Amino acid sequence: MNSAVVICECFARDGLQHETAAIAAHDKIEIIDAIADAGFSRIEATSYSHPAQVPAFADASQVLKGIDRREGVSYKATCPNGKAVERALADFAAGYGAEELSLLVSATEAHTERNLRTTREKQWRNVAEMAALAGRRFRLIGVVSMAFGCPFEGKVDQGSVVADIAHFVSIGVRHVTVGDTTGHGTPSSVRSLFERVARDVPEVTAIAHFHDTRGTALANCVAAYEAGCRWFDSALGGVGGHPAQIQYGEGYTGNVATEDLVNLFEAEGVATGLDLDRLSKVSLLCEKTLGRTLQSRVARAGYGFLG
Amino acid sequence: MNSAVVICECFARDGLQHETAAIAAHDKIEIIDAIADAGFSRIEATSYSHPAQVPAFADASQVLKGIDRREGVSYKATCPNGKAVERALADFAAGYGAEELSLLVSATEAHTERNLRTTREKQWRNVAEMAALAGRRFRLIGVVSMAFGCPFEGKVDQGSVVADIAHFVSIGVRHVTVGDTTGHGTPSSVRSLFERVARDVPEVTAIAHFHDTRGTALANCVAAYEAGCRWFDSALGGVGGHPAQIQYGEGYTGNVATEDLVNLFEAEGVATGLDLDRLSKVSLLCEKTLGRTLQSRVARAGYGFLG
Repeated sequence: MNSAVVICECFARDGLQHETAAIAAHDKIEIIDAIADAGFSRIEATSYSHPAQVPAFADASQVLKGIDRREGVSYKATCPNGKAVERALADFAAGYGAEELSLLVSATEAHTERNLRTTREKQWRNVAEMAALAGRRFRLIGVVSMAFGCPFEGKVDQGSVVADIAHFVSIGVRHVTVGDTTGHGTPSSVRSLFERVARDVPEVTAIAHFHDTRGTALANCVAAYEAGCRWFDSALGGVGGHPAQIQYGEGYTGNVATEDLVNLFEAEGVATGLDLDRLSKVSLLCEKTLGRTLQSRVARAGYGFLG
Repeated sequence: MNSAVVICECFARDGLQHETAAIAAHDKIEIIDAIADAGFSRIEATSYSHPAQVPAFADASQVLKGIDRREGVSYKATCPNGKAVERALADFAAGYGAEELSLLVSATEAHTERNLRTTREKQWRNVAEMAALAGRRFRLIGVVSMAFGCPFEGKVDQGSVVADIAHFVSIGVRHVTVGDTTGHGTPSSVRSLFERVARDVPEVTAIAHFHDTRGTALANCVAAYEAGCRWFDSALGGVGGHPAQIQYGEGYTGNVATEDLVNLFEAEGVATGLDLDRLSKVSLLCEKTLGRTLQSRVARAGYGFLG
């Protein structure tokens, strides 16, 4: 089945990044394989973060080695620095590397300082070095986080975000994730930014990455779709979320829930190309693995499209 | 402050209807008064259902008598039959009646049979009798539930829903709530129905009433707004929900959460006319009264609009 949209399933990385309990590598592998079985063509699998800084992904190579590779599926790994790219290259050389590497900048200086502990200027230099080091072995995915607002700086100028996306193009990156990291986007700001990117940086495939911090993620996905976006990130159970959000309460309100996004697309007649029964099964597997009820509404209520 | 949208706060009726624990009348009164203090001009306060059938609202008259009436606020009560309208008239004569009565039909025969235990034809006769009995003492609010789909019948013909709305007009009702009772609506079906109602039944004020069964409630509110709708129903904490939904799991995923809807409108520059600090306080009061964490994202994360 052809799909009209490309959904990257982010449970295993963005979803798990801030989980407090350690998830065993074999559990991650089981989930990633089940995600692939459901038909996703892009899967965010892990991060080559420094194991001491992000212990959740100390098993990055183990996970990439352990998954059962499916033809036509791209596995993505996050890279924060040159050392991470070197690890990605080593795994690639060993025959089990990721197909995609994601390289992140933040739209604001204050968030860059707090989250990445550097300046935007230095981070752009870091990203350019990573892109050069990665060469053409991987599909590079740029990420601009805080693209719709920042808890530290407030509003974010859309012209600046468009310039960041163009900056990615200048270092050879053709796919850029536009991240609403803390749920400040609204349908109108999403629509205007995605329309502007399509107009001003047409060589880029923009990817919508929305968090549901304030319940707007699905509405924002609709707005991005209406603005022409066809690539989306989501996480099963709506897990993930920045620690700055989690501190507000017990809810791990993170990414838009894959189950809910898929249900909405299918209900609207937009083919996702997924096996919906298998998707339901991996949704249950994620809840079982994390040991709690997650945030997807559809996981509770079932699919809602009608014959 | 003028408001660009009119939000009817439905916590005390649609929200509480299916709660298993009994909520004391004084707690309901405290919440309704706090809702009025936050600036809502329309509040769904109770239902004149038969006390034996819906014990949660056996205190209907007590609640209406106990609330501290605010000028400019309309209190709404649901009426299922002529006996209920007689009780509403008696309370009105005693000086503490509701300003609005809502009269419900379901868009589908199967749901009418299961939920109202009658036929659509008989229910329309019942509704016409109630409207005649109520006379001009109240603003009558028609309700068409299952307007976007039905778990028993599947798809619902929009022409039939428009005919139901026109039917309400023929019996003197000028405000009609269009209900997505079980979360089958999508942005495109919502947009097309609200546009069609505005075109075909222009004398009616259509009210968007969306449940978040499948996470689409906020996206559907955006679509209704874009189609010209300015009247919305919501419930604090996103409580409510039809028992047929609740059976699927532990989540009481009901109405669109007031906190999240208000946050979205304010973030989009659409004035709600509400006192947001007081809204946050009544949101906490609702959680305290029900003794559990409710469904609003904004209640956890705080308002997201930026200066």
